[in-house]
Amino acid sequence: MNAAWFPESPAASVIAPPVRPVLDVEDMPDLARGAAVLGTGGGGDPYLGRLLAEQALREHGPVPLVRPEDLPDDACVLPVAQMGAPTVSVEKLPAYAEIGRAVTTLAEHLGRTPTHVACIEAGGINSTLPVAGAALLGLPLVDGDGMGRAFPELQMVLPGIAGVPATPMSITDEQGNTGVLTCPTAKWAEDLARSMTITMGCTAIIANYPMTGAQARETLIGGTLGLCVRIGRAIAAARAGLDDPVAAVATETGGTVLHTGKVVDVARRTTTGFARGEARITGDGGDCLLRFQNEHLLAEVDGRIVTTTPDLIMVLDTATGEPVTTEALRFGHRVSVLGAPADPRWHTPAALAVVGPRYFGYDTDPVRVGAPGGTA
Amino acid sequence: MNAAWFPESPAASVIAPPVRPVLDVEDMPDLARGAAVLGTGGGGDPYLGRLLAEQALREHGPVPLVRPEDLPDDACVLPVAQMGAPTVSVEKLPAYAEIGRAVTTLAEHLGRTPTHVACIEAGGINSTLPVAGAALLGLPLVDGDGMGRAFPELQMVLPGIAGVPATPMSITDEQGNTGVLTCPTAKWAEDLARSMTITMGCTAIIANYPMTGAQARETLIGGTLGLCVRIGRAIAAARAGLDDPVAAVATETGGTVLHTGKVVDVARRTTTGFARGEARITGDGGDCLLRFQNEHLLAEVDGRIVTTTPDLIMVLDTATGEPVTTEALRFGHRVSVLGAPADPRWHTPAALAVVGPRYFGYDTDPVRVGAPGGTA
Repeated sequence: MNAAWFPESPAASVIAPPVRPVLDVEDMPDLARGAAVLGTGGGGDPYLGRLLAEQALREHGPVPLVRPEDLPDDACVLPVAQMGAPTVSVEKLPAYAEIGRAVTTLAEHLGRTPTHVACIEAGGINSTLPVAGAALLGLPLVDGDGMGRAFPELQMVLPGIAGVPATPMSITDEQGNTGVLTCPTAKWAEDLARSMTITMGCTAIIANYPMTGAQARETLIGGTLGLCVRIGRAIAAARAGLDDPVAAVATETGGTVLHTGKVVDVARRTTTGFARGEARITGDGGDCLLRFQNEHLLAEVDGRIVTTTPDLIMVLDTATGEPVTTEALRFGHRVSVLGAPADPRWHTPAALAVVGPRYFGYDTDPVRVGAPGGTA
Repeated sequence: MNAAWFPESPAASVIAPPVRPVLDVEDMPDLARGAAVLGTGGGGDPYLGRLLAEQALREHGPVPLVRPEDLPDDACVLPVAQMGAPTVSVEKLPAYAEIGRAVTTLAEHLGRTPTHVACIEAGGINSTLPVAGAALLGLPLVDGDGMGRAFPELQMVLPGIAGVPATPMSITDEQGNTGVLTCPTAKWAEDLARSMTITMGCTAIIANYPMTGAQARETLIGGTLGLCVRIGRAIAAARAGLDDPVAAVATETGGTVLHTGKVVDVARRTTTGFARGEARITGDGGDCLLRFQNEHLLAEVDGRIVTTTPDLIMVLDTATGEPVTTEALRFGHRVSVLGAPADPRWHTPAALAVVGPRYFGYDTDPVRVGAPGGTA
C-alpha cells in the first residue's frame, strides 16, 4: 500500500508514487515500458504485451502480487513465458488460449493445482504475458522473476543455476499443438523447445521451472515487477516534467550512460530461432557497437568493450526515454546506451559459464559496467 | 501352429515351414531380413534391429503374436518405432531403455495400462524394435502394422488415414529426454517430432497412434510380421537350394523384377532429418534411376517411370537376395529392383494425397507396378 512495499531502488521513494500490491489496467503502460528497459533489447514489443495484459485485466479483474518471501513452502509456482524470436512476435501475436493452455498442460502433467503464476524473465512481453496468464487463471502473480533482466535461452535463469530443474515444461502454439518435455538438463530443454518453437513458426508459449514456494523464495529475484512499474513511471514523470528520461532510468536502475548518438548501421538476421545481429551508433563520444542475440550482450565504444553480459545493456530513445528493442532498432534513431549492474548472483563462476560473453561466442572475459578502462 | 496361421501369400505354403504364433530368437534373422525387404530401402539396417530383438528375447523369453482380428475391443495397443534418418541409425543405435520409456511414457500420459505392442510400419528396424519392446514389457505383439511397407513420415499410416489420431505420442532419446506431444493433425506431429528428432541427433524412439483393439482390428494390415518371416525364409531356402533368391522374394510379395544391373552412381544426403537421394543402376535392360527419401519412392527405367509410391520398390542383392537399404547402396553393387503392389487401401484418393508421388515432390501421377507402359 506504499512505496516501501516493493524493495527500494535508489530513488524510488522520491520519484515513484505508491505502488499497490495488485496490478491493474492502469499499471500496464508503466510495467510494460519498464519491463522493456530491463529486457535489454529482448523480450519483445512492450506495446503488444501491454495490450494482452490490459485485455485480460479488464475481463478478469486485477491480479494480486505476492512477494517471493511471502510464498508458503508448498505453493505450486508455475512461470509462463513466450519463447522465440522477437522479430517474429511482432507479426505472430500470442493469444490468451495459449497462455492458459501452457500453464494448465504443465499443471496436469504435474498432477498439481497451481497456486501462483510467475515471470521467468523480466523483459518486454515476458513481464506482461504472465500478468495476462494470472488474470485468466484467477491466480496471484509472484512479484519477481528468474533473471532480473532478459536472456535469450531458457537455461539462463537463476533458479536453474541454483538447482531447480527446467522441466517438466510445457510448450504450445496457436495451432493447438502442445508438448510436455522432461529433460536431463536445462540446455537440452532449451535445444528441444527451441527446435519445436522454430517449427511452430518461431514463437511459442512455454511454462517451465515449476517451483515450490520454498524454491521460488530462495531463487527468484524479488521485486522486479515493482521495479518495472517504477522505471516506467520515472520515464513518464521525467517526460512530464521536461527532465531527462534517460537520467531517470539510470537513477532507477543504478545505471551509467555508456554512449549517446545516432544508429547508423543495423545488421539483423532471424536465425536458429533468434534475432541476432549488431548495431553501430555514432556520437560525440566515438562509435558504439552493440552485439545482440535477442538481447544486447556486448557494448564496445571505439573498439573498447565497456560492458558485457551478464550486466544490463539498455538502449533508450534519447528524447523520450522509450526502450528500443533489438528488432525495433532503425537507422537514424537517436539513442542512449545505458549499462547497469546485474544481480550479483549472475557474477558467480557457475552463472558466468551459462551467461558470460564466451557462451555467446564473444572472446572476452566479462566486463562489468563501470569497470576501469574496460578491455580492448 | 501351422502355415495357415498367417494370411497366405501366393506360395507361402510351398516355401515356408510353419510359423509359430510366437516370435523367438530363431525367427529374428528371417523376420529382420523380410522386414528389410518390405522396408523398400528404409527402416534401417535389419542386422541392428535383429540384434536388439534377439537380446531382448534371450533375456525375457518369446513374444506371443496376436492377430488384429483377435484383439478385444478395449485392448490398449501402443505402436513403437524409431524415427529419424537411417544413415544416422547405423552409428547411433537404439537402446532398450528408450524403447521401454517411449511406451511407458505414452501409457502414463494416457492413464492406461498397455495390453499390446504393435509395429506402425513394416520395415527394417521398425519391425524388430517392437519385438524387443514387447519382450521387455512382457506384452504380446500384434501381427500386423500400419503400412504394410515402410514410409518416411509419421502421417503415412493407414490407421491415421482411417481417422485414428497420431497423438498423444511420446518421443525419447538416449540422453533421457522425453516428450509427449498432442497435435491437431498427424502432419503437425510429424513436423514437431521431426524437429525434436533432429535435435536429439537424428534418431529417436517414438510411441504414437495409441489405439483401442477395435481401431487396430479395423485399420492395421494384418499378418505382415508373418509375411516378413516367410520372405526371410524364402531367401534362405532359395540360397540353400541354389535357387534364385530374387525370384523367391518376387513370389512371396507378388512382385515383378523391374531391373537388374550394377549401381553406378549414388547421390545421398542426410537433410531435414531424412536420407534423401538418387541411385543409378546400369544393366542389360537399360538404365534404372531410383529416387528415395529414406524409402525408394520412384523407379525409372530408361527415363520411363515404371513404379512409384505407394507401390513397393525393393532393391535386393542379385546374388544373395539380401535387401539393400538406401543408406547401404554402394557403387558396384549388383542389385535387382523389384516392384510389388501396396495394400489396396493405399490407392484411395485420401491415401494418395498423403503418400502419392506428388507429396514427395515428384511431378507424376502414381504409377502402379505392372501398369502397361508406365509413364514417360
